[in-house]
Amino acid sequence: MTEMHRWIAALALASPLIPATAQQVPDRVGQLRDAALDDQVAYAITEGLTTEIGPRLAGTEAEERARAWALRRLTAMGFSNVRNEPFPLKTWVRGEETAEILAPFPQPLRLTALGNSGATPARGIEGEVVYFASYDALLAAPDGSLKGKIAFVSHAMTRTQDGSQYGTYGVVRRAGPGVAAKKGAAAILIRSIGTDSHRNPHAGGTNFPEGVTAIPAAALSIPDAEQLERVIERGQPVRLKLTLTPRAIGTRQSGNVIAEVPGSDPAAGIVLVACHLDSWDLATGAFDDAAGCGIVTAAAKRIMDAGQPRRTIRILWAGAEEVGIFGGRAYFEKHKAERHVAAAESDFGADRVWRVDTSFAPAAKPVVDRLKAALLPLGIAAGSAPATGGADVSAVIAAGTPGIDLQQDGTRYFDLHHTPDDTLDKIDRVQMQQNVAAWTAMLAVVADAPEEIGMRNAAN
Amino acid sequence: MTEMHRWIAALALASPLIPATAQQVPDRVGQLRDAALDDQVAYAITEGLTTEIGPRLAGTEAEERARAWALRRLTAMGFSNVRNEPFPLKTWVRGEETAEILAPFPQPLRLTALGNSGATPARGIEGEVVYFASYDALLAAPDGSLKGKIAFVSHAMTRTQDGSQYGTYGVVRRAGPGVAAKKGAAAILIRSIGTDSHRNPHAGGTNFPEGVTAIPAAALSIPDAEQLERVIERGQPVRLKLTLTPRAIGTRQSGNVIAEVPGSDPAAGIVLVACHLDSWDLATGAFDDAAGCGIVTAAAKRIMDAGQPRRTIRILWAGAEEVGIFGGRAYFEKHKAERHVAAAESDFGADRVWRVDTSFAPAAKPVVDRLKAALLPLGIAAGSAPATGGADVSAVIAAGTPGIDLQQDGTRYFDLHHTPDDTLDKIDRVQMQQNVAAWTAMLAVVADAPEEIGMRNAAN
Repeated sequence: MTEMHRWIAALALASPLIPATAQQVPDRVGQLRDAALDDQVAYAITEGLTTEIGPRLAGTEAEERARAWALRRLTAMGFSNVRNEPFPLKTWVRGEETAEILAPFPQPLRLTALGNSGATPARGIEGEVVYFASYDALLAAPDGSLKGKIAFVSHAMTRTQDGSQYGTYGVVRRAGPGVAAKKGAAAILIRSIGTDSHRNPHAGGTNFPEGVTAIPAAALSIPDAEQLERVIERGQPVRLKLTLTPRAIGTRQSGNVIAEVPGSDPAAGIVLVACHLDSWDLATGAFDDAAGCGIVTAAAKRIMDAGQPRRTIRILWAGAEEVGIFGGRAYFEKHKAERHVAAAESDFGADRVWRVDTSFAPAAKPVVDRLKAALLPLGIAAGSAPATGGADVSAVIAAGTPGIDLQQDGTRYFDLHHTPDDTLDKIDRVQMQQNVAAWTAMLAVVADAPEEIGMRNAAN
Repeated sequence: MTEMHRWIAALALASPLIPATAQQVPDRVGQLRDAALDDQVAYAITEGLTTEIGPRLAGTEAEERARAWALRRLTAMGFSNVRNEPFPLKTWVRGEETAEILAPFPQPLRLTALGNSGATPARGIEGEVVYFASYDALLAAPDGSLKGKIAFVSHAMTRTQDGSQYGTYGVVRRAGPGVAAKKGAAAILIRSIGTDSHRNPHAGGTNFPEGVTAIPAAALSIPDAEQLERVIERGQPVRLKLTLTPRAIGTRQSGNVIAEVPGSDPAAGIVLVACHLDSWDLATGAFDDAAGCGIVTAAAKRIMDAGQPRRTIRILWAGAEEVGIFGGRAYFEKHKAERHVAAAESDFGADRVWRVDTSFAPAAKPVVDRLKAALLPLGIAAGSAPATGGADVSAVIAAGTPGIDLQQDGTRYFDLHHTPDDTLDKIDRVQMQQNVAAWTAMLAVVADAPEEIGMRNAAN
């Protein structure tokens, strides 16, 4: 990525020549931003958390070790008010997970249980496969038609830069198992919600409607899903054996780790920057979301080291995001009465920021203009969608706090998302540095803005 | 790959304009070659074998089903003398395989047992890790210094087009476990012999010297090997738990499946074209080596359908290649007295052929010249190394039969080799068609050559 480094550097150097908006960027903001292109802190945090903790499933002992690690690290970095805010969490853990085609062409398949999946008996279950090309096709199946069968639902998710197909196709995972259960299915398999071609299934949570008993639910790796489709296309009945033994282990502790850079003007409000500390259990969660914690924390440290900001910067390393945004909810319940003036989260990998979306009140236009101008030299242009935040700050933003979405390039995000492949080697350090520069510029503009920043109009 | 298709087509069309060598290509050869650029047969065989059989480890019931499938398919295609030539095989099968770092940073690791690995007790073993950066470093460890320890050997294999680093770095897998066993190690882990960054370990055989008891031996996926290196670099003692329960299941049957296109002149000798039918057990073996069987068989069928060739073309789908080239050896023992005039094997994936190496006697220069001329329009240039064959024909070639190596592009081969990721989706159909065109051209030239083709000078 030397090429990109040169390109970023060229853009940064060229910034004085960009007319109009660039002239609004205070020198200090530009200097902080450009210095961050050599950041080493974000990567060091990501490397440390993934190496010294590894996978950190919400509610487990591993997540607890991750919180202890985070408290030590944030304290050592010099942040203030470093603390854990615990909350209880109903915890689910993975068990055995195997599958094989019994007939007509015996062979193993690779899959992983979805979060909240029910369990088969330890000896497994056997059943005939009923294929659905989409979630809509599953919805159209007559009630009772799946009794005793194993539903298999595919989809057509493709690669996009903004990752927006996750919402559309993700319904197969989020809601498909509940639908299949209501129609009497013995179990459900889905094609992993992803865009890669590796034998690594994509984990992720599902939910069963109130009153519906959870059935075994798992995601096949994409090559395995395609293999099963080919077998089905041969036209003979297809029988599978499926063994999934996840289990609920009761209520455990999770927690939000918080650190602050106290502002000189407490009345000016809090700028909240977030990431999540937990990961799925199949990988060390480098992209999702150790990198996000590295990026926001490195940026906050740069602001802290440059002198006290006007507004308090609060760093939230949320717990239990993957399993249902429990950390984000707990944060909101505890802190909703405080005056947040902006909220943002980094939770989409570590590839470059390419777009910025905001949701400020009209009166804050000068702040937004300075923000856009400060980001433009990094190759970041303003988008037209309102910022809604990463998952852990979405409640804060929904309640009226202005949001800032520094949108990352998601072209390869769903190759890695929730798979065993989400490991440190996937981090592109130069792109990660561009992220730190963007977050540093954002904090420099927003935390120090002399203007008052008010709540959005609720109608926005 | 539409771009490449256009390029191949352009080269093919341009061939009448290429002076000197191209003028030597008989029209019939050029027509057969160019028609093969639309081949569908090689892919159909690859798709069928990988879908309807799946993984097919040597000596197992799956390899037996694969032989039955092969006999049916080759018979249905109209080949002659289709038969299985069985041979006995000491068979090894995989068991449980898990590993975890116990201290200082508890977390699971992904690995797979090497072929012929010894087993741990079912409850696993625990031991301290001793790191070696290379095979040479392992060799230099004092005798007895590994007593009760788990050796971990890394290496620096990189991506090359010709795949030649497999020989150099593959020694870590082939010989490392024997060395570690002799030095008293309780077990050995290696960094997978490969070039990818996925959590899919690379299987492959190892061997223990006569009189040395097999120890548990496994390959970590490359991201896991890098993770373990990072943990070790922290400087604290690293303890692992390792559970590997593979076992020898005694002598079973393997076999070579053979089919022929009988030649009009039996005295003119046999052209042997080979691939191997068995695969490692972690994947469906699309690249290694269903594709090779598809390519050589599709080419032979094209020659058969175009009219009886002068020389008999013999197709060998060898058994038990992966576990020690047992099929190739059995073939040689049974058929060494027959007159082979050329031998070639496709066993390096399905990406484009970019180079041809040969090892003919000097008197056959006109045949070799026509062969080179026929391949040049496909973007295949002559190399300078003598052909030594794929594994299953290497004994035939070593005994003096001329060899032809249609060298495939191996740039991504060791991303997939022996991993769970060696599946059908990795086949690039346009590049596979270029392979079929190359093999068709080769057979058209060699099987019909009016010249006599003699044995190589043994000194060659």
